[in-house]
Amino acid sequence: MIIIMKPSADPADLERVVARVRSMGLNVHLSEGEQRTVIGVVGLTAGIDRTSFEVMRGVESTVRITQPFKIASREFKPLPTVFEVGGVTIGGQGLVIMAGPCSVESRSQILESAHAVKEAGAHILRGGAYKPRSSPYSFQGLGEEGLELLAEAREATGLPIITEVMGAGEVDLVVKYADILQIGARNMQNYRLLEAVGRTQTPVFIKRGMSSTIEDLLMSAEYVLAQGNYNVILCERGIRSFERYTRNTFDVNAIPALKQLSHLPVIGDPSHGTGRSDLVAPIARAAIAAGADGLMIEVHPHPDQAWSDGAQSLRPEGFAALVTELRALAAVVGRTL
Amino acid sequence: MIIIMKPSADPADLERVVARVRSMGLNVHLSEGEQRTVIGVVGLTAGIDRTSFEVMRGVESTVRITQPFKIASREFKPLPTVFEVGGVTIGGQGLVIMAGPCSVESRSQILESAHAVKEAGAHILRGGAYKPRSSPYSFQGLGEEGLELLAEAREATGLPIITEVMGAGEVDLVVKYADILQIGARNMQNYRLLEAVGRTQTPVFIKRGMSSTIEDLLMSAEYVLAQGNYNVILCERGIRSFERYTRNTFDVNAIPALKQLSHLPVIGDPSHGTGRSDLVAPIARAAIAAGADGLMIEVHPHPDQAWSDGAQSLRPEGFAALVTELRALAAVVGRTL
Amino acid sequence: MIIIMKPSADPADLERVVARVRSMGLNVHLSEGEQRTVIGVVGLTAGIDRTSFEVMRGVESTVRITQPFKIASREFKPLPTVFEVGGVTIGGQGLVIMAGPCSVESRSQILESAHAVKEAGAHILRGGAYKPRSSPYSFQGLGEEGLELLAEAREATGLPIITEVMGAGEVDLVVKYADILQIGARNMQNYRLLEAVGRTQTPVFIKRGMSSTIEDLLMSAEYVLAQGNYNVILCERGIRSFERYTRNTFDVNAIPALKQLSHLPVIGDPSHGTGRSDLVAPIARAAIAAGADGLMIEVHPHPDQAWSDGAQSLRPEGFAALVTELRALAAVVGRTL
Amino acid sequence: MIIIMKPSADPADLERVVARVRSMGLNVHLSEGEQRTVIGVVGLTAGIDRTSFEVMRGVESTVRITQPFKIASREFKPLPTVFEVGGVTIGGQGLVIMAGPCSVESRSQILESAHAVKEAGAHILRGGAYKPRSSPYSFQGLGEEGLELLAEAREATGLPIITEVMGAGEVDLVVKYADILQIGARNMQNYRLLEAVGRTQTPVFIKRGMSSTIEDLLMSAEYVLAQGNYNVILCERGIRSFERYTRNTFDVNAIPALKQLSHLPVIGDPSHGTGRSDLVAPIARAAIAAGADGLMIEVHPHPDQAWSDGAQSLRPEGFAALVTELRALAAVVGRTL
Repeated sequence: MIIIMKPSADPADLERVVARVRSMGLNVHLSEGEQRTVIGVVGLTAGIDRTSFEVMRGVESTVRITQPFKIASREFKPLPTVFEVGGVTIGGQGLVIMAGPCSVESRSQILESAHAVKEAGAHILRGGAYKPRSSPYSFQGLGEEGLELLAEAREATGLPIITEVMGAGEVDLVVKYADILQIGARNMQNYRLLEAVGRTQTPVFIKRGMSSTIEDLLMSAEYVLAQGNYNVILCERGIRSFERYTRNTFDVNAIPALKQLSHLPVIGDPSHGTGRSDLVAPIARAAIAAGADGLMIEVHPHPDQAWSDGAQSLRPEGFAALVTELRALAAVVGRTL
Repeated sequence: MIIIMKPSADPADLERVVARVRSMGLNVHLSEGEQRTVIGVVGLTAGIDRTSFEVMRGVESTVRITQPFKIASREFKPLPTVFEVGGVTIGGQGLVIMAGPCSVESRSQILESAHAVKEAGAHILRGGAYKPRSSPYSFQGLGEEGLELLAEAREATGLPIITEVMGAGEVDLVVKYADILQIGARNMQNYRLLEAVGRTQTPVFIKRGMSSTIEDLLMSAEYVLAQGNYNVILCERGIRSFERYTRNTFDVNAIPALKQLSHLPVIGDPSHGTGRSDLVAPIARAAIAAGADGLMIEVHPHPDQAWSDGAQSLRPEGFAALVTELRALAAVVGRTL
Repeated sequence: MIIIMKPSADPADLERVVARVRSMGLNVHLSEGEQRTVIGVVGLTAGIDRTSFEVMRGVESTVRITQPFKIASREFKPLPTVFEVGGVTIGGQGLVIMAGPCSVESRSQILESAHAVKEAGAHILRGGAYKPRSSPYSFQGLGEEGLELLAEAREATGLPIITEVMGAGEVDLVVKYADILQIGARNMQNYRLLEAVGRTQTPVFIKRGMSSTIEDLLMSAEYVLAQGNYNVILCERGIRSFERYTRNTFDVNAIPALKQLSHLPVIGDPSHGTGRSDLVAPIARAAIAAGADGLMIEVHPHPDQAWSDGAQSLRPEGFAALVTELRALAAVVGRTL
Repeated sequence: MIIIMKPSADPADLERVVARVRSMGLNVHLSEGEQRTVIGVVGLTAGIDRTSFEVMRGVESTVRITQPFKIASREFKPLPTVFEVGGVTIGGQGLVIMAGPCSVESRSQILESAHAVKEAGAHILRGGAYKPRSSPYSFQGLGEEGLELLAEAREATGLPIITEVMGAGEVDLVVKYADILQIGARNMQNYRLLEAVGRTQTPVFIKRGMSSTIEDLLMSAEYVLAQGNYNVILCERGIRSFERYTRNTFDVNAIPALKQLSHLPVIGDPSHGTGRSDLVAPIARAAIAAGADGLMIEVHPHPDQAWSDGAQSLRPEGFAALVTELRALAAVVGRTL
């Protein structure tokens, strides 16, 4: 960390800052410019609050040099994290496709969906039993009944299931059914929830918050990792920008950036990342071309009757065509599908 | 709600959409333009998911005409919501000043802070016992000990206290101490938490999420209101934008917009809204000039030793000077302080 | 400027960077941390391109410490810039109100508008003769005829006039009529235009670009100042964010920030800053409370017939009521009106 | 266009709106809901200013149904625009690679660059002779000398050249040298410049503004097209968002969106779209996978000595390796390279 003093800072200001740094067991390296003094802080600074220095008299600003995340970083673990979920390898050379409807709506719907996505080439079945809805008056999901239906679909198809958990109080229940626990974008900084899933041994899939930076996402992963659960998957699902033609702006830059900064697997969600079914295929291709380890795609056998929270589902035949395209693309980028 | 069909939509597409509208007990009003048909949906549409129509074949887009929030709206309740907390009236003619440190750090710190802000004119003491930190390695607050110290500070000064609750599982505990429950920006769409505080009768203070729209904020308030807790306070605390000189962009437009759309009290937080102590005073004035019902301001007796999560504290003397300024300003905008 | 080397940088990388710094006549101050070396660049660095260093092998990032603007900065000129335009003092203790329609539409419209805003208390008449429109098929303004009508309105009322100039090729013409040259938000980084108005002696009013930072705005001012025209006025008119209830997000933080960083007068434009006539009054008050030196407000005698490019006009009676309110507010913030 | 009246609108309000619509030669289709009346405007509405209706008494909001651009739209011209520049086909099945340094720095630099990018597989040479710099004190380009050097590089290699024109006053000069005229992001809404290049017959390459929507970009293209110059190329080069790890956020969604909405060729610029040389390759692949017709990439033989305005150049060997990768990718997406 670097602390930049104001030109108007006096020696007493400088001394107070230096004393505070030293009180944390860190060393300082002073650099006096023509106009101002710059303090280099030497030592393990990852846990330090920069703002605690920014509020001090005489301090102009601070600059972080080292990353604030540790276990999530490539420096901590240079090789990619690879693990298995129900026979599916995540983070390896093979791309992973998670597909299914937004919500579990009924037994027939989830079974039909599961068979359809399996046939088209998906590896993991997605479906929401607990749905975070912006309106308290909207459909909130089937709850535990939905979890049971997902488990039945798993049994019928052999596909592992990923489903969202919305609160720390529900983790014990959801973990009984889910192969992967999904943290939704709105809960990306719900630290109690992150801690709770971190205490399980079930893999955790964290969706980037709508206005969370790449660093924020890695810090949320760090919350889970710090509890001892090392099977974390990161998901880019679009951020909020001024653009209104698409529901979200798919931040494709984040995919190679996350792969550089971290060893954790990275999944792209072009369904939420665009909000338009006619853009899902090109953005799915773009995500894989940029280095994603897989995709999460909304697929519904009858989109005209689907419940939706913002993404537009592909029909199974459209999804199957996309998987075929992706197979050719995978080979070009050194992956398999 | 209006549903706009694509120019390429065929009669069967139109029929399916109309049938779905009618299946929800709503009526349609068709308007055929030269290029496309527009469907007006007539009836109570607030609970409807627009996206469920947007995924249908032949549909180009939908437009919501009525607001999706109900109990929070001015149409539902034209007169402002006014209520009392520990002898302090919120939402009335009098402005309400909430002040105190970011975190409860020690007994002496919170007592000194409480006396200082009371003397300067604050009505309510703020202070965090549970702190949502982006790093799992940062100070997370004193927890229940912090709540006890806040209660002691209340007893010593008579100031009611506002403090953050981070998870649904902690509501029962925090509600025993707090006069107002604060929902932090990162938890604004933590629906389990909103439901839990909605089931208490303690007033709830909701901070706008860093990238939440005005409508999102009102929908989060609706979650609390829908549970039967009508004492909700809205807080503008800055949003994320591309600007980097300030930590956040204080969306002053949101203040009169929220007052128009809703009857709920609106508080401005210039400390987080700017992230710079040298901008707190002008933005505090701006918030009041724009129609805010009060302010939340970080004040610390020794900012050089303060823990901070992004806001920069004022010193008590600076805060006292600001309150004096605001007193003159209040009179000009028809308020008292 | 500070240059942060990568942990992987080797001595040859460091040497190349140091050599390049020295080749620019600057000195270096090396600070070696445990993991990486940080280079402090000492000397006059304002004209240096940071990115030219960022592309060098071994460099991780750079941090600017001193501001890149010079003549626009408070450090260069601590006292506020105050000047007169047609008898109106700008930047002094008195607040300045610029008002009038979006566009000059006809002789009667601009004369009626001019008399109405003068009567209500405005000091300067605004009106567009050349209009930057997002569609080439929309009304583009009356051109020189509009300038002549503005001049006639000035003669009739004594109000100086401010009007937009859209291209370097039109400066010679517009300068014959205008008392203040307005640079629109879309042209804020049209450097040829900035240079051209910088070569005149007519005051220049620069609107902040829709996604320009505070620093960008000051750099655009620097372009004008560097040509020798020191009468520059800065205008905050709203930025683009994800919020959709208002047309733009009025960045009220920018007002005190610009006043701190620069000696130039700062004007707020609540008409474009909100896009909603029902929010103009509270945001006008907020701008003044935050320290603005004046306001630009759209006023039209017949809003139902007005051409508009995004702002909603006040009626003259609404504008007059607002000016009365602002008079009381001015006194509280130590200004006059 | 749809006009939504307020619930409080009275019959006289409605009548005034209807009369204004009819005065423009358009028809209305009224739809009365339970709470409010909605007016469908039937006819050619592309040139209408929605805001002129939004300012009318009783109007709540308006919704545009048809796109405001005409000649740029797929509806106007369903087949893709394909044209030749110096023997290179743009917009056809073959991908087009434009490469070269940010700025022309010297004769040897541009000649070395031209030979290097040609050898690596580029089709068109890029290089700036006039540089829009945020600081008036930074290097502004070699001007006409730079144009002459570009022409010499073209002669030496056979590569057509693309270079930026910054003002309407320079078009006559630049057009003598350039094969393609580049409009920079900061000038995307410099309408005088767009009109001036529209009056030439030289192809125009428009970079999306840093906070311009997809619609804004197409409207800027419309300015050029409306003057009779139909050879327009659109370029996605990253937008401004809250993310700070990358210099810009490459909006990959815009690529298929622009291809759907318009027949014009679309080029991706991963150099500016990321600002980091280590992300150029994955984002170049993503742009092609998403359907781009080509790429613009910064390449410099000696990045350590390069002038830069934000992008980081690839070295020729890195660029050559990327082109090889892209060749395999092109085949998978049905293109050639």
